[in-house]
Amino acid sequence: MISAMGPAPTRAAGSVGPVETRYADLPDPIDLDCGRRLTQVRVAYETYGTLSPERDNVILVCHALSGDAHAAGRSATSTDSTRDGFGAEDRDGAGTQGLGWWDGMIGPGKAFDTDRFFVVSTNLLGGCRGTTGPSSVNPETGRPYGSDFPVVTVADMVRTERAFLATLGIERLAAVAGGSLGGMQALQWAVQYPDRVGAVVAIASTHALHAQGLAWNAIARDAIMRDPDWQGGHYHGTGRAPSAGMGVARMVGHVTYLSSDAMTDRFGRGLQSSDDVRYTITDAEFQVESYLRHQAGTFVKRFDANTYLYTSRALTYFDLARQHGDGSLAKALEGVTARTLLIAFSSDWLYPPSASRDVEEALLGLGKPVEFHVIDAPYGHDCFLLEEARQTPIIRRFLSA
Amino acid sequence: MISAMGPAPTRAAGSVGPVETRYADLPDPIDLDCGRRLTQVRVAYETYGTLSPERDNVILVCHALSGDAHAAGRSATSTDSTRDGFGAEDRDGAGTQGLGWWDGMIGPGKAFDTDRFFVVSTNLLGGCRGTTGPSSVNPETGRPYGSDFPVVTVADMVRTERAFLATLGIERLAAVAGGSLGGMQALQWAVQYPDRVGAVVAIASTHALHAQGLAWNAIARDAIMRDPDWQGGHYHGTGRAPSAGMGVARMVGHVTYLSSDAMTDRFGRGLQSSDDVRYTITDAEFQVESYLRHQAGTFVKRFDANTYLYTSRALTYFDLARQHGDGSLAKALEGVTARTLLIAFSSDWLYPPSASRDVEEALLGLGKPVEFHVIDAPYGHDCFLLEEARQTPIIRRFLSA
Repeated sequence: MISAMGPAPTRAAGSVGPVETRYADLPDPIDLDCGRRLTQVRVAYETYGTLSPERDNVILVCHALSGDAHAAGRSATSTDSTRDGFGAEDRDGAGTQGLGWWDGMIGPGKAFDTDRFFVVSTNLLGGCRGTTGPSSVNPETGRPYGSDFPVVTVADMVRTERAFLATLGIERLAAVAGGSLGGMQALQWAVQYPDRVGAVVAIASTHALHAQGLAWNAIARDAIMRDPDWQGGHYHGTGRAPSAGMGVARMVGHVTYLSSDAMTDRFGRGLQSSDDVRYTITDAEFQVESYLRHQAGTFVKRFDANTYLYTSRALTYFDLARQHGDGSLAKALEGVTARTLLIAFSSDWLYPPSASRDVEEALLGLGKPVEFHVIDAPYGHDCFLLEEARQTPIIRRFLSA
Repeated sequence: MISAMGPAPTRAAGSVGPVETRYADLPDPIDLDCGRRLTQVRVAYETYGTLSPERDNVILVCHALSGDAHAAGRSATSTDSTRDGFGAEDRDGAGTQGLGWWDGMIGPGKAFDTDRFFVVSTNLLGGCRGTTGPSSVNPETGRPYGSDFPVVTVADMVRTERAFLATLGIERLAAVAGGSLGGMQALQWAVQYPDRVGAVVAIASTHALHAQGLAWNAIARDAIMRDPDWQGGHYHGTGRAPSAGMGVARMVGHVTYLSSDAMTDRFGRGLQSSDDVRYTITDAEFQVESYLRHQAGTFVKRFDANTYLYTSRALTYFDLARQHGDGSLAKALEGVTARTLLIAFSSDWLYPPSASRDVEEALLGLGKPVEFHVIDAPYGHDCFLLEEARQTPIIRRFLSA
């Protein structure tokens, strides 16, 4: 039942209130894995809660492919919501306007409790929501980078986050947390800056995407790049953008974020028209067809196609064993000092529990502290955005230890 | 292991030899579900084996979305192969040239034994391989139908097959068989012409596709229709065709035909280059990316995009309960007199065993003869094209009863 999709939080929990995204210009260039160097990097960010005098209560929250810095509270400047995931509109109704994508998880009394922690959220490197990315102006040419933007990795995103935090005077994180690509960033932090991370919360994530996940991402990227309006990646300023292709990419993504059972429960074979089929090729006939087109339409309005390409590429490249362990995940994780919390969802076939289990087993084998929970939930990968009530006590307990 | 993907048939079995596709012009128009009437319908077909004097040994074989009339033997006129499915190239090597798509199943001593049966295979209505479809000339305009072609259903395909068989003097089928959309046609035959079908073999098929299956098909169709070269469906004769979009559609389809485990076994995260990633957005970096692009490239050369749209639409519309039972599958199947054999594959998530089980249970509830086998095989939906050795004894035994 859709009404039961996002169970209400079990405790009264507050909101961080109205928030405004801010911007920081990094003083130094970022040296990237690809060998190139990015200068004049700007980072969009928000913060929730209060930084302790010791600066020891910082949690960095990292977003997934389609998110941004606005993770919690209500935007003071926009009614757009980056709240996402299956059924978000139904769950929040009109109240969704301006809410951050993880508002159910961040706030006073919530999983990431702003009464205790200073939560920082940034738009990732390569993004299109304020942080430097392909749609930003290339200082060398005065025009948007487009596909001249360097190919960035999850490690580059983490480097940028680290450099940004330094501008706030923050040198060490109590925890770093995220789901999906955000979880990859969290794991990367633990490997890349082991002495700067106290705890990792990686939800619905993986140390390396499986072959089918690579395939879905490749199809989504190809859908964008095959759109003639992509123009080799230099569509900025032409008045045309590869919206048709990115709509297809989004639809592919969306189906991979859901479970088949959840789609059956929600849509079944329900028709758009009340009675019978209308014998049409072009029109949406089934409710699920209409739903997907709607999802595609809203997404292309708020998201940049090149950012989709770069972010998708980064998450397919991510492979801790290859990048840090000569092919061995255990070797890659040898230096980790953070306590690690892994959460996966039983119906998530894109980032299946087995991927988190690989990480758990590697950490256990190294004698490192790790906790792994598989939440039995039916909504697929989107559970990390939906199953707030059941994640909350697990995360609160972990962060209190 | 890829080498073990298509296990060799367990018995020596022969080939039907060189074959040539023939064409029949139907004497009468076909009245369609949508209310329109198609005139001057041509059907492409092949036959294998010998028609008995009593005309009582006919098996009609129905193909799936991407097949055609060339089901068995070696084409006398073309080196193209419609042999399909994961790993077909590896399995058959150069010997694949000109082989029919179900050559492993049709022939002397094979599952559909041409020593005993007269096997007939047609290209379905709406097809692009000889039977009247959107790329055929509309007799009313003298130009290709394009998207003026009427929306056809599985029932319309079966009507056309029935009318075609009449031109051969065949009024009754010993059996009708097919996989996927072909299995839908087989089930439709049993419902639509109960007194003309002795037995049904429906493999990796369903009485109605589930919501996620509807979604994948909608995405594939949208990928084609969003390609500007589709031109509203009237691309024939313009020198342009929506190959970019149909390539995406094929890639989506291909991944849904495979299991995640099979993709991991075959490709894993193997890179195209021997050593490390090359930091590229546009080039295929992982082997699975290159494989998908190759599949897309070969498919668009041999297939018409409008036929893809029409066939995909027909298979999403197919719903025995809605069309024949006022929402009840049992009611839809009440009139069936054919013995029914259902085969499904454990790893098929597009046409899962549960769909065949629905049909089995409905038939059992009606006291009708039905046999259901789930073959434990790892390759997903493509198993119906690959698992010839294990399907063969089941089908031979069923047809001998």
